[in-house]
Amino acid sequence: MSEQLEKLKEQLMEIDNLRSAAALLYWDQATYMPPGGATARGQQIATLNRISHEKFTSDRMGELLEDLAWYELESPYDSDEASLVRVTRLKYEKAIKVPSDFMAKISNHSAASYQAWTKARPANDFSTMLPYLEKTLELSRQLADFYPGYEHIADPLIDRSDEGMKAEQIRLIFSELRSKLVPMVNAITNQIATDVSCLHGDFPEQDQFQFGNMVIKQLGFDFNRGRQDKTHHPFMTKFSINDVRITTRSKDDDISESLFSTIHEAGHAFYELGINENFNATPLGSGTSSGIHESQSRLWENIVGRSREFWEFFYPKLQSAFPGQFDSVPIDQFYKAINNVERSLIRTDADEVTYNLHVMMRFDLELDLLVGQLAIKDLPQAWNERFRSDFGIVPTDDSNGVLQDVHWYSGTIGGAFQGYTLGNILSRQFYDRATQTHSEISTEIANGKFDTLQNWLREQIYRHGSKFTPNELIRRVTGNELSIEPYIRYLWGKYGQLYQL
Amino acid sequence: MSEQLEKLKEQLMEIDNLRSAAALLYWDQATYMPPGGATARGQQIATLNRISHEKFTSDRMGELLEDLAWYELESPYDSDEASLVRVTRLKYEKAIKVPSDFMAKISNHSAASYQAWTKARPANDFSTMLPYLEKTLELSRQLADFYPGYEHIADPLIDRSDEGMKAEQIRLIFSELRSKLVPMVNAITNQIATDVSCLHGDFPEQDQFQFGNMVIKQLGFDFNRGRQDKTHHPFMTKFSINDVRITTRSKDDDISESLFSTIHEAGHAFYELGINENFNATPLGSGTSSGIHESQSRLWENIVGRSREFWEFFYPKLQSAFPGQFDSVPIDQFYKAINNVERSLIRTDADEVTYNLHVMMRFDLELDLLVGQLAIKDLPQAWNERFRSDFGIVPTDDSNGVLQDVHWYSGTIGGAFQGYTLGNILSRQFYDRATQTHSEISTEIANGKFDTLQNWLREQIYRHGSKFTPNELIRRVTGNELSIEPYIRYLWGKYGQLYQL
Repeated sequence: MSEQLEKLKEQLMEIDNLRSAAALLYWDQATYMPPGGATARGQQIATLNRISHEKFTSDRMGELLEDLAWYELESPYDSDEASLVRVTRLKYEKAIKVPSDFMAKISNHSAASYQAWTKARPANDFSTMLPYLEKTLELSRQLADFYPGYEHIADPLIDRSDEGMKAEQIRLIFSELRSKLVPMVNAITNQIATDVSCLHGDFPEQDQFQFGNMVIKQLGFDFNRGRQDKTHHPFMTKFSINDVRITTRSKDDDISESLFSTIHEAGHAFYELGINENFNATPLGSGTSSGIHESQSRLWENIVGRSREFWEFFYPKLQSAFPGQFDSVPIDQFYKAINNVERSLIRTDADEVTYNLHVMMRFDLELDLLVGQLAIKDLPQAWNERFRSDFGIVPTDDSNGVLQDVHWYSGTIGGAFQGYTLGNILSRQFYDRATQTHSEISTEIANGKFDTLQNWLREQIYRHGSKFTPNELIRRVTGNELSIEPYIRYLWGKYGQLYQL
Repeated sequence: MSEQLEKLKEQLMEIDNLRSAAALLYWDQATYMPPGGATARGQQIATLNRISHEKFTSDRMGELLEDLAWYELESPYDSDEASLVRVTRLKYEKAIKVPSDFMAKISNHSAASYQAWTKARPANDFSTMLPYLEKTLELSRQLADFYPGYEHIADPLIDRSDEGMKAEQIRLIFSELRSKLVPMVNAITNQIATDVSCLHGDFPEQDQFQFGNMVIKQLGFDFNRGRQDKTHHPFMTKFSINDVRITTRSKDDDISESLFSTIHEAGHAFYELGINENFNATPLGSGTSSGIHESQSRLWENIVGRSREFWEFFYPKLQSAFPGQFDSVPIDQFYKAINNVERSLIRTDADEVTYNLHVMMRFDLELDLLVGQLAIKDLPQAWNERFRSDFGIVPTDDSNGVLQDVHWYSGTIGGAFQGYTLGNILSRQFYDRATQTHSEISTEIANGKFDTLQNWLREQIYRHGSKFTPNELIRRVTGNELSIEPYIRYLWGKYGQLYQL
């Protein structure tokens, strides 16, 4: 049988090579490609995606998996062999349900819609996007219908990024979380506003970039196995187990933009770089879900990167890196500034406390759209009403409202946003577990040491790649189901103290 | 029939997308890839090459070409349609003669040999390379034997990069050229050595890079359709008609290294950027041969870039770009320095006059090896003997002798070198033709204007892509066969004056 397993790995390697090439085409498009390259590049990415989808859904793949079904019966559930066959089979069974033609249709529509959105957003023109969004909604529903038997039409869409998570379960979790967050935001924003002026000044791009690189190197990012470049939208991408890259963007007058996005993307990279290298170029060889991935990026960005301990080590370095700027700013003032909570319009700029309110309203709107309780034409109004209810303010215009995020305009409606908040919740659930076992972690952070935390995360989470579903992994790591308690406790503890609630 | 033609173009587009992705994988490997990415990257490139070769040699491709044979009979030879079918068919017929397994064998051997060479060259260790080279020679002969009926065993290998050129024809041309060059080199090197000290100094990498970019922009390089990056070995690569990139390397203490390599690679890029855009993503859409390509790069690098007129425009800019360095250096001294002729060991560092001697000895050695007149084990000695005969000096060691060029150590023996000298010869044959029609070209160059020359080259050479074979193109452009006369006349004219021969 091991000969068949080798054949499977060979097939998977070929598919992974095609996907890695597509990822590089995308990375280059976002970093170095001259403008003239755009048209051909879209075509090249589409071709590689199509060929890899054809190969993954081929009869040969189906036959190999059938021949290998034996492993799932005979080997332990968490053995590498059984897991490889199981996870590949599950992904295969999901992939073959959707005809290649339909995937191509979604892909072409997404590209056209994205193109239109890049113009519509700056022009504050929702009406142009109306027909695109209506088609996106229709295609999203059709996509879900390839997986009959769902409880909620959003379930198959959510499953694509957060396997096994259900709309109803998430809705319950989110509504409980919201009920705790809204009063917290109210209590905080009734206080006198924090002085954030120290974050603003003159920060040359290259100096910010170098400082960010120094920080993530200290956290454990190995520049022999990755790099950081500049883009318009930060992201993490992987070309192989030893080549994982991140990107960042900076504002010359704001130190926080680039720095925290760099730490965030490095968190994603740590996960991918820490996966068991035997899983390389197979479906086991990447992070298991959007939510688990965000738990790692947010853990490093927020729980570690916005902690008092972290800055005990890094603040003197920041002061030297930008002479003059922070000379008369005590560390506590800086710490307050980077944890400033305010009602703001843009999700990606939001602080730790309000961020989830942005996510949850999008999640609820997605469900309303999918079940037909909300029409696309009424979306801007619904957006603004919900915003007023959660934030007490209304977007100045659609550009800063319903048009702000790329997700709905370049993909599907449903499943796009829940991972962010699931990640926030899990980041603390995991971190608490880590510090229960290793109480020395916070002291180490204050000394610029991150090995204990990294090793724990690698052992508990990173190395497994996609061997376990998100729910399985959460249970293995925490001994519990997903729970918002640790996260709420963390927020009240941190922000209660910061704002003397 | 035009429906079938569309189908052919669609198939070709898919293959071109795969090849472009492979080219990007290579470019990234040479520019930005972190060291850890190397192993997987080799695998990824191999996979894409294999899939594109499979698709190009598929039965479907053969059937389509058969259905379209009609075009070759009914449409004019130089029509776009007949040319597309003809050129694709010829490439297809050549490609299917070699089994995919054999191509994979060559590819794997090349990769292994290249790896070994990267260590053997700095270690001055030819003996390690002996078994690799012996296998390379064997594989090269086998490759040639897939094309029975050749006059010389090197012909099929030469044909891969310089279609239609024959070993015997090239040997005659080269031996005539050699008989003119050897006395010229003797005459020049008997003179007092040129003072080249002005080319040495302190030239920061970034300043050299910017100066090179400014120069090629002035020559007509459109940075919306390409870019320049830094690598260890300079090269040009193309991802689509509007995304053509070049790379350069610099020495901090030598202004000429990066500058002339930048102009050289820009010359290659001008060719690719100037091809009829209707040929994009088809076998017509790239330069027609190695020799014609080199004719463009060398024309820009040497005939234009090392001319007195060129520096009338650019020398003041060079003086401002590197303040202090050239203040007391008259333009004529600089002009003499960049055209310094000397007997040197390394081909890539050689001047215009001696360069071809380097190439021709490699070409002759290739032929001797292929026909069995020379054994691999005797190659270093044969190299050194020939070097003494042509240059009057002997390499200090194999690193600076037989081990210096990557070609034999990462590909085939036969067909690797002739293009360089064919290009040099043609560069002047073409340039003379251009100036016969447009006598204003040299005055324009002195004023930093390059449009007339660019337009002529685009019209005569660039735009045709691979529509014509090299020999067809030479006849169309010059009205003659390839001839060394213009090149010899140019060298005697220029260097006769410089060295007062």
